[in-house]
Amino acid sequence: MSSTETTPKLLRALAGETFERPPVWFMRQAGRWLPEYHELRARAGDFVSLAMNPEMAAEVTLQPMRRCPFDAAIVFADILLIPMALGQDLWFEAGEGPRLGPLPSIEALRDAVEGSTAKLANIGETLSRVRAELEPERALIGFAGAPWTVATYMLEGRGSQREAARTYAYQHPEALDALLGVLVDATARYLVMQARAGAQALKLFESWAENLAEDVFERIVVGPHTRIVEQVRAAGVDAPFIGFPRGAGALVENYAAEVPVQAVALDTQASAAMGRRIQAGGKTIQGALDNLLLRAGGPALDARVDALLAQWADGPYIFNLGHGVMPDTPIEHIVRVVERVTGKPAKAMAAA
Amino acid sequence: MSSTETTPKLLRALAGETFERPPVWFMRQAGRWLPEYHELRARAGDFVSLAMNPEMAAEVTLQPMRRCPFDAAIVFADILLIPMALGQDLWFEAGEGPRLGPLPSIEALRDAVEGSTAKLANIGETLSRVRAELEPERALIGFAGAPWTVATYMLEGRGSQREAARTYAYQHPEALDALLGVLVDATARYLVMQARAGAQALKLFESWAENLAEDVFERIVVGPHTRIVEQVRAAGVDAPFIGFPRGAGALVENYAAEVPVQAVALDTQASAAMGRRIQAGGKTIQGALDNLLLRAGGPALDARVDALLAQWADGPYIFNLGHGVMPDTPIEHIVRVVERVTGKPAKAMAAA
Repeated sequence: MSSTETTPKLLRALAGETFERPPVWFMRQAGRWLPEYHELRARAGDFVSLAMNPEMAAEVTLQPMRRCPFDAAIVFADILLIPMALGQDLWFEAGEGPRLGPLPSIEALRDAVEGSTAKLANIGETLSRVRAELEPERALIGFAGAPWTVATYMLEGRGSQREAARTYAYQHPEALDALLGVLVDATARYLVMQARAGAQALKLFESWAENLAEDVFERIVVGPHTRIVEQVRAAGVDAPFIGFPRGAGALVENYAAEVPVQAVALDTQASAAMGRRIQAGGKTIQGALDNLLLRAGGPALDARVDALLAQWADGPYIFNLGHGVMPDTPIEHIVRVVERVTGKPAKAMAAA
Repeated sequence: MSSTETTPKLLRALAGETFERPPVWFMRQAGRWLPEYHELRARAGDFVSLAMNPEMAAEVTLQPMRRCPFDAAIVFADILLIPMALGQDLWFEAGEGPRLGPLPSIEALRDAVEGSTAKLANIGETLSRVRAELEPERALIGFAGAPWTVATYMLEGRGSQREAARTYAYQHPEALDALLGVLVDATARYLVMQARAGAQALKLFESWAENLAEDVFERIVVGPHTRIVEQVRAAGVDAPFIGFPRGAGALVENYAAEVPVQAVALDTQASAAMGRRIQAGGKTIQGALDNLLLRAGGPALDARVDALLAQWADGPYIFNLGHGVMPDTPIEHIVRVVERVTGKPAKAMAAA
C-alpha cells in the first residue's frame, strides 16, 4: 500500500484529489438524530457538561461512525466554548438554545486569551481519544466558530436575527474590530491545540455570514479568517482548513479567492456554476445537499444526490449537507445517502 | 425637449441607459419612517383598509416624494392582497404582522382567479390618482409579491422561517406547483391591470428566495417569474420588469440569465463583481445599500453611497437599498442619501 492509499480520503480531497465517489460526512452528524445520543445526553446532564466530558464527547463523536461509512468524524463540541473560556458565562436553556452572560470588558477578554486554550484542554482530550479509536482511513475534523459568528452571540447574549450585532458593526467599528481581534487570537490557539491533539483537518464555522454588505464582509469575515489561518500556520500546524461562510451568497467567491483555506464549504443555495468556479480557482468544495430534503426523503433525495455528484465530482469535492442534520431526520435517509455516495453498505456497521 | 428628456430617468435606466447620477428610490419609502404616514395610518384603522382606500393610499405613496427628490414612487399596497382577492382571509396583528386564514382548496383558488383582479380595482384607482399628481419626470412603479413568497404565507398562515413551506416543496411538489400556477395567473392579471391604471414599471418581490437549493429555485422562482412576464407581455403590456430574488445569493445570476425581466434588484450582500456581470449580460441592476447602515448614518454611510456609485454607475443602475427602509430610520439620513445620489436639494420639497 502506498502512503497515498493510507491517507484518509477526506485529506486527499482537501489536497485537491478528485474521486468518482468523493468522501462524505455530514454537519451535525454527531447528535440528535441518533437514539444512542439522546441516551447519553440524558445521563450527562447539561449540554456544556457533555461537551466538556472527553469520554462522553468521544463516544458521541464516534456514534455516527458506527452507523454509517462516513469518511470523517467531527469532534463533538460547541462554537460557544471560546467565549466561555474567555470568561463569559454560557448556559443552554432547554428548547431555546444558548444564553451568554454579560460581555466582559475588552481588556478582560484580551487578558483571558493566553489562558483560554488550557480551559479547553478537555476538547483536546476528546480528539485524542477519538483519534485512537477511529480507523486510520477515516479522518478526524476539529473546528471552531468563526469570530464574527461568535461575536454576534457574545454581543446579543443569544442566537438572534443579528440585527443588533450588524448595527454594532457600523456604529462601533473599532470596538467590534477589537473583539474580533481577541477572538482571532483565541481561536487560532484553540485550533493549534486541536491539531496537536489529533485533528487532521480544521473547520471554521461562520454560521451567520448572511446579509452582510461586501465591505463589511471583507472586514469582519475575510480578514479574521485569513489571520486565523496565518496564525495557525505560523505555529507550525499544516492541517488543511475548511472555511464555511454560510449564507454569504455571491460573496462566497470573494472568500474563496482571498482566504487561504484549502476548501470552501457551500450552503444549500450554492449554484453548480459557483462551485465549479471555486474548484477551477484551485480550492476543494464541500456541500451542499438540502437538510430539509434529507429529512423529507423519497426519490427526489436520490435524484438530488446523483445531481450533486454529477455537477461537482469532476473536481475536488467533499459530499456534505448545506446545513446541519435536523434532529428529526429519519436514520434510514442518512444511511441511504451515505451508502449511495460511498457505495459501501452501512448495515454491518450499525450499532444493533 | 426631446422625448428622451421627458422620459423618466428610472425608465431610461430600465431601458439600459447609464447615468453618472443614476435614478434613486427606496424600498418601503412609503411608510413608517414618516410622521405624516403614522398620522394617516391612525385615521385609516387597520392596514388592509389603508391599502384598499385609493385616496389614502395615494397620499401615502406621494408623501415620500414631497420629502425627497426620489426618481420613482411605488404604489402603497401589500403582497398579501392577492391571497385575499383569491378568498383567503387576511388580517394584521398589531406588532406581529400578517395572518392568513385557512388555505382554500386549489379548485376554489383556481375558480377565484378570474374575479380576483376586479377585487383589487382599488389598487388601480390608487395608481391612477398618483400618476395624475406625480410630476412627469418621476416614474410610478406597480408591484406584486412573487408566487413562492406569497405561497409561503398562504401555506404557513403568517411570516415564518419558511421551513414548513420549503419542506412542502419537496413532499408535495405537484400541489405546490398547482398553487404557484394559480398565483402566476392571478399575479399576471393583477400586474396587467396595474400597468393599464398607470404603473410604468412593474416589480416582482420574491422576498423569501433564501435557502433554496438550485433545482428548487429553478422550479419555484425562475419558472413562475418567467411565466408572469410572458403572460403580461401576451396581454400587450410592455412596462419594464424589475425582479427581486432577495436572499438568492449566487442563484441571482441564474435568475438574471433566465428570467426575461429588464432589471434585477440586488440585496445587501450582492458583490460588486456579480452586479457587473449582470450588467454585462444586458440587464439593469438595482440596489443595494444596507438598510442598517442607512439607519446608523455617519461618515460610513456617505462613503458606502459613493462606493456603490463608483462600482456600478458605469453600467445601467438604479440606486436603492438591499432591503426596505427600517421604520426607525432618521429622516435626515434618507434625505442625505437621496441628495447625495441625485445632486438635488430636498429642502424645498419638504412637507414643512
